[in-house]
Amino acid sequence: MKNSSAYHRLTKRFERHATINECASVLGWDAAAMMPPGGAAARGDQLAVLAGLAHAQMIAKDVADDLAEAEAMPVSPDPWAAANLRLMRHAHTRATAVPADLVEAQARANSNCEKVWREAKRTSDFNLVRPHLTEVVNLVRRQASALGPALGLSHYDALMDGYQRGIGTADVAAIFGAYEEFLAEALPAAEERQARTPAPVKPSGPFPISAQEAVCRLVSERMGLDFDHARLDRSAHPFSGGTQTDVRITTRYDTADFTQAVMAVIHETGHALYERGLPAGHARQPVGEAAGMAIHESQSLIVEMLACRDDEYLAWLGRVLHAGFGGEQRQYQVENLSRVWRRVERGFIRVEADEMTYPAHVIMRFRLERALVSGNLSISDLPGAWNDSLRDLLGIVPPDDAHGCLQDIHWYDGAFGYFPSYTLGAMAAAQFMATARQHGPGLKTAMGLGDLSPLMNWLRVNVHMHGSVMGFNDLLETATGQPLDPGFFLTHLRTRYLS
Amino acid sequence: MKNSSAYHRLTKRFERHATINECASVLGWDAAAMMPPGGAAARGDQLAVLAGLAHAQMIAKDVADDLAEAEAMPVSPDPWAAANLRLMRHAHTRATAVPADLVEAQARANSNCEKVWREAKRTSDFNLVRPHLTEVVNLVRRQASALGPALGLSHYDALMDGYQRGIGTADVAAIFGAYEEFLAEALPAAEERQARTPAPVKPSGPFPISAQEAVCRLVSERMGLDFDHARLDRSAHPFSGGTQTDVRITTRYDTADFTQAVMAVIHETGHALYERGLPAGHARQPVGEAAGMAIHESQSLIVEMLACRDDEYLAWLGRVLHAGFGGEQRQYQVENLSRVWRRVERGFIRVEADEMTYPAHVIMRFRLERALVSGNLSISDLPGAWNDSLRDLLGIVPPDDAHGCLQDIHWYDGAFGYFPSYTLGAMAAAQFMATARQHGPGLKTAMGLGDLSPLMNWLRVNVHMHGSVMGFNDLLETATGQPLDPGFFLTHLRTRYLS
Repeated sequence: MKNSSAYHRLTKRFERHATINECASVLGWDAAAMMPPGGAAARGDQLAVLAGLAHAQMIAKDVADDLAEAEAMPVSPDPWAAANLRLMRHAHTRATAVPADLVEAQARANSNCEKVWREAKRTSDFNLVRPHLTEVVNLVRRQASALGPALGLSHYDALMDGYQRGIGTADVAAIFGAYEEFLAEALPAAEERQARTPAPVKPSGPFPISAQEAVCRLVSERMGLDFDHARLDRSAHPFSGGTQTDVRITTRYDTADFTQAVMAVIHETGHALYERGLPAGHARQPVGEAAGMAIHESQSLIVEMLACRDDEYLAWLGRVLHAGFGGEQRQYQVENLSRVWRRVERGFIRVEADEMTYPAHVIMRFRLERALVSGNLSISDLPGAWNDSLRDLLGIVPPDDAHGCLQDIHWYDGAFGYFPSYTLGAMAAAQFMATARQHGPGLKTAMGLGDLSPLMNWLRVNVHMHGSVMGFNDLLETATGQPLDPGFFLTHLRTRYLS
Repeated sequence: MKNSSAYHRLTKRFERHATINECASVLGWDAAAMMPPGGAAARGDQLAVLAGLAHAQMIAKDVADDLAEAEAMPVSPDPWAAANLRLMRHAHTRATAVPADLVEAQARANSNCEKVWREAKRTSDFNLVRPHLTEVVNLVRRQASALGPALGLSHYDALMDGYQRGIGTADVAAIFGAYEEFLAEALPAAEERQARTPAPVKPSGPFPISAQEAVCRLVSERMGLDFDHARLDRSAHPFSGGTQTDVRITTRYDTADFTQAVMAVIHETGHALYERGLPAGHARQPVGEAAGMAIHESQSLIVEMLACRDDEYLAWLGRVLHAGFGGEQRQYQVENLSRVWRRVERGFIRVEADEMTYPAHVIMRFRLERALVSGNLSISDLPGAWNDSLRDLLGIVPPDDAHGCLQDIHWYDGAFGYFPSYTLGAMAAAQFMATARQHGPGLKTAMGLGDLSPLMNWLRVNVHMHGSVMGFNDLLETATGQPLDPGFFLTHLRTRYLS
């Protein structure tokens, strides 16, 4: 191919790689939202084969040659092309550091472990899944010891880098340590203040699933999600998946309580709008991807925790809910909904946690997973260590492992190094929101009409459209004038829960 | 890999090939049943990449070497292994005959053309899709001229071989010629006889979609489909897809008329039960696949046309329908339902045709597509040639191209050589049914309870479990004692419509 440059050949290669991953993403959505149980074994094989094929694209000898050739050329004056080439190198380093048989072994072990985990969680039987988790962690250790040296990172940082580039254990540990100190004072203070206000009244149902689904779809559409490029379905755990032009969000419904379903849809719509806002001209290139999972989480939390739990939005949402469900209007008034949806509570379950205690759940997982990866914590000791950690941070102990170390899918699916993204995302969200508020005077008024477009326009221009052209802190600095400053998050929590 | 034999390596290779195709199959189902319209362009790319990857598996140099090595060994005493190796060679010959760029070009052109066809059909505007169909046919011609010499078949037979091995134009033309003669006498006779019986009363609705869906699912389950390994959804055109352990059937609902939806589900359940009955021990190997599309169609038609339109089954089905929809019981009695579902009628639309006129639709398509592939018919002349053919065979002329040459997806999706399978399948079904009736005395009694298990058990043992170990006529001969004999089909039609 004399006529095509090495860089051009690389873009074609990465386009193919991304397209294979799109197939896997849709099949992953299908497995969670559509697939009958009997399809699970074959689906595991299908995803393992796709993972192997994607990996094979990346480790092909041509890629190394083309990278060397492209890097030997003068740096492109186009910052997107220059960043894309750097990200290609980074992806290639990650892919070639890990042997192909390990990649397929992980895909298979993760899929098997995840299946057993579902049963173990249902019966709260950690021993059932222990051997599978042991296998998963052993493979993750092998992965981390291959990745670390190749990337010049510690083993755990090399795993974290797979989810969010540009921030490491040292920074995160400092941020989390400071948060732990904040929480020790703020949580009792918030609880004390909360005790002096009237208790929230949970609107009483039943709330038929079809009515909840209609409300959720309306809310998501009003937030800006275009259902010509999206679907809303049900799954055991809410998530956002699919592809950039075809995002698939899910939630779960409880006919006795709509509050989780609605907020989950708002959260997933935030993820979906980020995907939809990525630069289409760089689709299927590393530089056109989301800037990392912490940034991704900032885009879901900025709507779920910041915009949509503010009084302005809740006033509108209350009217929509009342129209959808009927019943006593008082339950849907902003005074009550704000108490329902802005409540601090020490709980066992991360995904049900409020925004102040949520970081505690992340901090303990961050510590435990580092110990698992380093080998300082054995799998058998995990349940006990889990319970000790939660007691240290929130002063409560789970009644069983289903409410403890079996609650999250992540580790059982091989995802280590992901958890910090949740809290880094919450902190980034507060920083983005503070800046967006300054620059968008119509923001609050629009929110009172359920209209997030002023906020979304700001995010599109300052976050979404940048794809991966910048790293975590550079993106924050460009958008807000400074790298991550957890102070914005603390200020937000103080304003909402302590003043 | 010194320890693994060439044949063993081939089985691993074909397993991977089949697994890639499973991914494509689920994504194809998703495109028809779930995908929002905005996902279409990316899905086309995804399927093209998967087609390319599957093809690459097959044309890898190792495959040719391993095939030569395995074929040089003494023929395996295991007939499954011996047949599998022959089928691997056949698949390899088909795959290597066609250049990779043509494979991807066809996937892309078919996907584009199919999209435009949807609009062209909606507006009955053949000119809209003409250039796309021209491109598709040009690529099919290139494909056929590559395949023909490699397989030692005529161009059109090489295409037909892609859907049903072991039967060619000469046989089919003779069978179809004889059917045309039969039809010229039988159709007027059947119409005359029908005119002397009371007209059927179409049960009057509306029939809510949820009620229809419940009835369809019940019928499908009672036929033997296990919904732990299956789904029933909606799509513009009913089809059966997915994979062997996770079959996905679809139908479409009309609230004014349940008759098409129910029969479509019965038809697709027949396909699904065949997939489920294939030999699991040979899954993902060529020999474990269905024996071809004509045999596949025989498995849908044996239930849809033969078993489920018999009085015994209709009596049970009528009770189920009445329980599901309510209304006047008389409409659901077997006397009326048999007139609704066993009616001969000259119509424009193949998929709505009765079993006697259906072959006429196939015969004209068989002739037209041979002429398109050979170049004897230009795309511009297709609408006129279509209308002439239908007039010759059924004496009617479509009011527009939506009811004419735009009605079927096949050609617009690149499928040439498929159509004969429908009628070969109908004929094989009649032959299977005649034999099953002889050997299953409890068959009719069970059918009166909606229970097809005696029939299904016979089919499982005599058809399904053989996978692809035999060719079309060998399978018929093993199951029924003789190769395809259209006489069984004619006898069935005479019995049902003329006596």
